[in-house]
Amino acid sequence: MKNFLDLSEFLDYAWSLMKSGVQDPKSAARNPTFATISKDSYPALRTVVLRFADRETNCLKIHTDLQTDKVNELKENKVAALHFWIPKAMVQIRASVNVEILTGTQVESEWNAVPLRSRVGYGSVPSSGIKIMGPFEYQKTSKQSSFAVLKCEIRVLDLLYLGSKHQRAIYRKSDKWRASWVAP
Amino acid sequence: MKNFLDLSEFLDYAWSLMKSGVQDPKSAARNPTFATISKDSYPALRTVVLRFADRETNCLKIHTDLQTDKVNELKENKVAALHFWIPKAMVQIRASVNVEILTGTQVESEWNAVPLRSRVGYGSVPSSGIKIMGPFEYQKTSKQSSFAVLKCEIRVLDLLYLGSKHQRAIYRKSDKWRASWVAP
Repeated sequence: MKNFLDLSEFLDYAWSLMKSGVQDPKSAARNPTFATISKDSYPALRTVVLRFADRETNCLKIHTDLQTDKVNELKENKVAALHFWIPKAMVQIRASVNVEILTGTQVESEWNAVPLRSRVGYGSVPSSGIKIMGPFEYQKTSKQSSFAVLKCEIRVLDLLYLGSKHQRAIYRKSDKWRASWVAP
Repeated sequence: MKNFLDLSEFLDYAWSLMKSGVQDPKSAARNPTFATISKDSYPALRTVVLRFADRETNCLKIHTDLQTDKVNELKENKVAALHFWIPKAMVQIRASVNVEILTGTQVESEWNAVPLRSRVGYGSVPSSGIKIMGPFEYQKTSKQSSFAVLKCEIRVLDLLYLGSKHQRAIYRKSDKWRASWVAP
């Protein structure tokens, strides 16, 4: 991989990687780490599946069961982050985001597009994180009312490329996406 | 991979994966995601290299340049998290931690063990994250005084195994590491 000569080329490349994550199940960008702030004020991280990446609206989307800790945490505090490390490209993408929780009729078309075999991921009994007596004392059910889409609006993108010379740049919405190179 | 029949077997396996991360540069557990809380109260994530994992002391260690955002963030707020996703094992390890920043004579033996070619990772001019006019307007220097070890003391371990049936368990220091199965 060559170096990036300008900031917009670097940003283009990061978006192409995120779009690959949505389209290609084998892409490393398919499974970013999603962080929220827990109720006891610690960062809480988990691997997620990237479902949507749109540059026009600066928006990334993931799907979740409504009864999870991450949704409860986001109801109290909408701040979050998505982190991608793509070894083949040697690129790290860090997105700082504000999250809107979409449910019900807002996400009907998304629910209809979820394959039947995947729908059991939404509507676990008891809810995810609840103590159970044995490891398998739960049931996975398919419940449309438990399906939610987390719409992550990007406020800062921090890109790092570990080429023969390292490159790092930060893009901020508050600066109208004017970007800067920064020391890596 | 078989299922885990008891909580201690599951924990043993998670520690064996973390230890592999320290010993084997090709292990997926080599590069966890490390999260802090930024000064504007968002989660801040980056890929790190796991340098040490010790079950006796419930401690994980990573190395860093002292002049990085993560160190500044930890000086204000020592809460952090480490996240591992190990695709081959289908295991996710989430560690909620408190971090102590070790420097100077406290880390002399660790500094001496850093290969010469890797020491340029500690002591960038200007500091990491500082705006620069062009992408390569920085120098990587080798400065022992910029070397720090982040000693991460685990308070909660949350393990998830995506076998044919999913299994999840939580281990808490505050409960004297008494663990529970929870719904995945």
